Amino acid sequence: MVFPAMAFADDPTAGTLNMGINSLWVMVAFVLVLLMQGGFILLETGSTRMKNAGHVAGKTIFTAGLAALIFWAVGYGFAFGADSSISEFIGFGDFLFDPSIVSVDDGLPTTLFFLFQLAFATVSLSIAWGGFAERAKLSSYFIFTIIFIGVIYPIVAHWIWGGGWLAKDGAQDFAGSTVVHLSGALAAFAATVLLKPRIGKFNKDGSANEISGHNQVFTALSVLLLWVGWFGFNAGSTLGIGDGFFGYVGFTTMLGAGAGAVAALLISWAVNGKADITTMLNGTLAGLVAITASCAFVEPWAAVVIGLVAGVLVFYSAKFFEKIKVDDPIYAMSVHGAAGIWGTLANGIFATDELATKVGVGQGGLIDTGSWHQLGVQALSVAVCGAFVLAASFLVLVIIKAVIGFRVTEEQEIIGLDLSEHGAYGYPEQLKKGQGIQG
Amino acid sequence: MVFPAMAFADDPTAGTLNMGINSLWVMVAFVLVLLMQGGFILLETGSTRMKNAGHVAGKTIFTAGLAALIFWAVGYGFAFGADSSISEFIGFGDFLFDPSIVSVDDGLPTTLFFLFQLAFATVSLSIAWGGFAERAKLSSYFIFTIIFIGVIYPIVAHWIWGGGWLAKDGAQDFAGSTVVHLSGALAAFAATVLLKPRIGKFNKDGSANEISGHNQVFTALSVLLLWVGWFGFNAGSTLGIGDGFFGYVGFTTMLGAGAGAVAALLISWAVNGKADITTMLNGTLAGLVAITASCAFVEPWAAVVIGLVAGVLVFYSAKFFEKIKVDDPIYAMSVHGAAGIWGTLANGIFATDELATKVGVGQGGLIDTGSWHQLGVQALSVAVCGAFVLAASFLVLVIIKAVIGFRVTEEQEIIGLDLSEHGAYGYPEQLKKGQGIQG
Amino acid sequence: MVFPAMAFADDPTAGTLNMGINSLWVMVAFVLVLLMQGGFILLETGSTRMKNAGHVAGKTIFTAGLAALIFWAVGYGFAFGADSSISEFIGFGDFLFDPSIVSVDDGLPTTLFFLFQLAFATVSLSIAWGGFAERAKLSSYFIFTIIFIGVIYPIVAHWIWGGGWLAKDGAQDFAGSTVVHLSGALAAFAATVLLKPRIGKFNKDGSANEISGHNQVFTALSVLLLWVGWFGFNAGSTLGIGDGFFGYVGFTTMLGAGAGAVAALLISWAVNGKADITTMLNGTLAGLVAITASCAFVEPWAAVVIGLVAGVLVFYSAKFFEKIKVDDPIYAMSVHGAAGIWGTLANGIFATDELATKVGVGQGGLIDTGSWHQLGVQALSVAVCGAFVLAASFLVLVIIKAVIGFRVTEEQEIIGLDLSEHGAYGYPEQLKKGQGIQG
Repeated sequence: MVFPAMAFADDPTAGTLNMGINSLWVMVAFVLVLLMQGGFILLETGSTRMKNAGHVAGKTIFTAGLAALIFWAVGYGFAFGADSSISEFIGFGDFLFDPSIVSVDDGLPTTLFFLFQLAFATVSLSIAWGGFAERAKLSSYFIFTIIFIGVIYPIVAHWIWGGGWLAKDGAQDFAGSTVVHLSGALAAFAATVLLKPRIGKFNKDGSANEISGHNQVFTALSVLLLWVGWFGFNAGSTLGIGDGFFGYVGFTTMLGAGAGAVAALLISWAVNGKADITTMLNGTLAGLVAITASCAFVEPWAAVVIGLVAGVLVFYSAKFFEKIKVDDPIYAMSVHGAAGIWGTLANGIFATDELATKVGVGQGGLIDTGSWHQLGVQALSVAVCGAFVLAASFLVLVIIKAVIGFRVTEEQEIIGLDLSEHGAYGYPEQLKKGQGIQG
Repeated sequence: MVFPAMAFADDPTAGTLNMGINSLWVMVAFVLVLLMQGGFILLETGSTRMKNAGHVAGKTIFTAGLAALIFWAVGYGFAFGADSSISEFIGFGDFLFDPSIVSVDDGLPTTLFFLFQLAFATVSLSIAWGGFAERAKLSSYFIFTIIFIGVIYPIVAHWIWGGGWLAKDGAQDFAGSTVVHLSGALAAFAATVLLKPRIGKFNKDGSANEISGHNQVFTALSVLLLWVGWFGFNAGSTLGIGDGFFGYVGFTTMLGAGAGAVAALLISWAVNGKADITTMLNGTLAGLVAITASCAFVEPWAAVVIGLVAGVLVFYSAKFFEKIKVDDPIYAMSVHGAAGIWGTLANGIFATDELATKVGVGQGGLIDTGSWHQLGVQALSVAVCGAFVLAASFLVLVIIKAVIGFRVTEEQEIIGLDLSEHGAYGYPEQLKKGQGIQG
Repeated sequence: MVFPAMAFADDPTAGTLNMGINSLWVMVAFVLVLLMQGGFILLETGSTRMKNAGHVAGKTIFTAGLAALIFWAVGYGFAFGADSSISEFIGFGDFLFDPSIVSVDDGLPTTLFFLFQLAFATVSLSIAWGGFAERAKLSSYFIFTIIFIGVIYPIVAHWIWGGGWLAKDGAQDFAGSTVVHLSGALAAFAATVLLKPRIGKFNKDGSANEISGHNQVFTALSVLLLWVGWFGFNAGSTLGIGDGFFGYVGFTTMLGAGAGAVAALLISWAVNGKADITTMLNGTLAGLVAITASCAFVEPWAAVVIGLVAGVLVFYSAKFFEKIKVDDPIYAMSVHGAAGIWGTLANGIFATDELATKVGVGQGGLIDTGSWHQLGVQALSVAVCGAFVLAASFLVLVIIKAVIGFRVTEEQEIIGLDLSEHGAYGYPEQLKKGQGIQG
């Protein structure tokens, strides 16, 4: 198993104690990344309608639970299994993962490495659900979780983080702008294209209607929880404390987030005349998504620039998807897709040789080195991973659609998935039978 | 003070630094367990009606505050006081706990041990409130907190974790399936039996009505927060990093949770024809409750089995309690009671000798050793602790009922506890006076 | 840079590993303090009306993002810049903060010190918003953030924590009862006085109306999140693990919080005949605010007394501000102002010489030493910092008012800031156009 970031983990100073500190940091980071599922519960429910709230919230818990079992049984092996050196294209071994009680690899208990990687896979999955929102059958969530967590995500993770061919190529994606965010976004894209837009989203003349989410307190709180969790996500990807570099990673992460928030609010204020809250929240997340690939590779000023661009990008990207009549209820394609691509490419522009050397992956980007090489590697990485996830997700969902059906009936969609899929409203006192339908 | 899990804490490698790492982990774990109170706020409000929401949420904060004072003044001493070796049945000493500034015991500052244990006691208390929900007087919460945190819980904690007689007997309860969860559930049971069902829960013909909780986003988010906090609860019970074993404990915890979620959803889908969200959420928690006793004693496959059984159990258990006309609004008896018993017994089946030796408590279970001994110890532990908590709680609540009254009046219950106990709705814009009564 | 609490950080035992442990604790503490913004989102939305909820929640995210950029560009330098020894009145240097990748100062990576201090500044800012609530223009938030985070807060932080003149005077404010809480509260006071009360708050005869917040589940959960975060805030201010003293700081913090909750509930029950939930929640926070200055300086019994007094104080303080017709929607002046002053002064009464020596700031208070000296220092510190923040905030807001206007129009206030400032309701399904106005 070759995981680039592990480089920090085995500071040879002091064996066990050093392992202890690194273990503790990875445990904390895992917990923070798991907490991000709370962010997704609030983001997705807050961005959708009351009649679907119980379904949307509940399925996040269910699929997180299912993902744990599938990643344990299959996914972990395909990404990081013990015999992964066999192939650059897929990992192998460690199915039904059963580590000896305190097995340690590269200075970290493998149990903690498993938990940390599982939490990442689950984030990618929760991003994908953005494309399923408010109209996919519960059974499709069940099956897609199995395939995505069992096979699709692990393959990409293996390519970039598991010693696969893109890792050997020097692709820089420190904490997963591509592996986690772009993968999730493209699965969402495949789903939303296949499902077609929600009833009422687009008019016959092609113009779009706003289908407002029902609770901006939830969405704002979701952004805060995701922001908090992101310090586990990014700074945790050092997998160790070493010389304190994880603090630097947290520092650039903070700057990217702040810049995204500010840029998105200002662009929406300037263009629309109103400071749109949803855009600003998306900008914060886009800043975080973009800095995810580059947080360990760039200087502070560059982190600010990356975040600012992400904030502007998310605004125009959302406009673009609406224009081409793609319904993106949770803005997965804009926040995680467009910003994920931008963040990965940004390494090719802003990475410094000093930091690339420190991390031990790839080299400096255009500005520091004058060379287009790293930008090329990053573009290849985005293109290949993107194409693979999109094609694989599309294929799986087409089969789901053909065999068991993907979308609920029109009637079910109108009454809402809480009633149609689960038999009860998530807000029973606020939505008596028949009331939800206007929403 | 003999706390089995302390065994991991004093790795003799490197004195102060080792103490530092362990201290930090226990601080983090304490914070995670305290965060579980946020889970209880959301679980209990989400599972009940809007007219009681302010009361339900507020009393969790209040009783957590009161618990801190009582555990400091009395409870800690009865569980873990410095002179606890006097008796196997109750601890002693350290009342109005006043440790010297940096007193360290078994490699851990006693202040952190106190905070961690306080957070556990408060979880048990919050479980108990499930039986009080929507009809108990505020004053009964006040008095029951004092007795439960001051005496009842500390006695059970002393028996199993404080070097008491069950500890000497080899009872395995790593993080408290019995001490914390079953204790809380049986206090809830005593309360709900004495209070009798909520108005409208059962019809004259004995059939039950569904009194839906008002917010499934809250309940789903609550499960996520509890799940996150559980890594402090279970993995934190190692009280140290040592050789990285805390990661293994986190690993089995994750598998138990995932299995509980999946099993509960599937059983409700199969039996009822609808994938019930409440059941699935309860299954996740039941998986966590069950794995709590066994997380450090079993292999990964066994953790999955324990979680699966817990998920199925919680479904049938909830049906059972409804059938015998016990009103269990927050499913405390099913989630924490039935699964708590199952989890404790599961050690007697699935514990391995290797892990029992590592932890230093009891021995392997039926499958690994072929011996029924550990199962017997576990059954005794459940029976004795359960009987004690049930009897003690019942006695206290009978006295409360006789002296100050336990249940609000029918009129107060109908208008809701927000108005009747506190003079204001928790949702004043959504429930104008007189509106809440239909809920 | 002289930061008193740093004294614990450079335990000379073991160089790198010790730095590693301290780094990890400060990272965790930073994350906990950042999580407090989630508490503020819920506290402020829950305490205000539905028609403003999206605005209130969203602006917290936005201003936290803007604060990160401003503190990076300017504020950090004025508080803790590398050339801060130049002046006792303001720091200097490190603008557009660009630390070398793993620069370490006093045993802590400067990147982590930056993040921790940024999170503190942002808490102070979020407290200030209490005075702006439900009637200030969005643009005023924008400008005030720049000035408060860029200049006002850094100056106070420099005085007490950055080696400034109050630090040299021996002013004790371990985690910021004055620096963070009182500063925020006085900025809120300046704002609410300049804005004047919300429409409908006071009648012509001078009597006050209750404008209830819309969601007590949010406010109760907010208190829990803040409480959890406070262990990063207070115990994190040790900036290291050292001999385990951070556990002691957490211990006194817990006692202060519990005492505040209990005292506030009982006083409201006794005086008003109803156990008011809002008062109890405020009491919990007031206990935490008060113990913030003194958590490292006092014995456990004193922590309880400090919390009890804070709980009573917050009740009468809220009455007082209502009586003098100051509208304090989130109780910033009572919770953070009155309790902040009390907590800072309490050091002068309850600090022990032993603990003052351990922390290395000031000396014991009245009870331990019989000397009024420390109380005088504390009073001076409160008076000077308070006067500076109040005057500076007032000046900035007067200029804002004159140049761009501070308060929205009456019509905008009535329809709510969600519609008027952002063009969409935060709760669009619950507030159709025209419905919010009665709230």
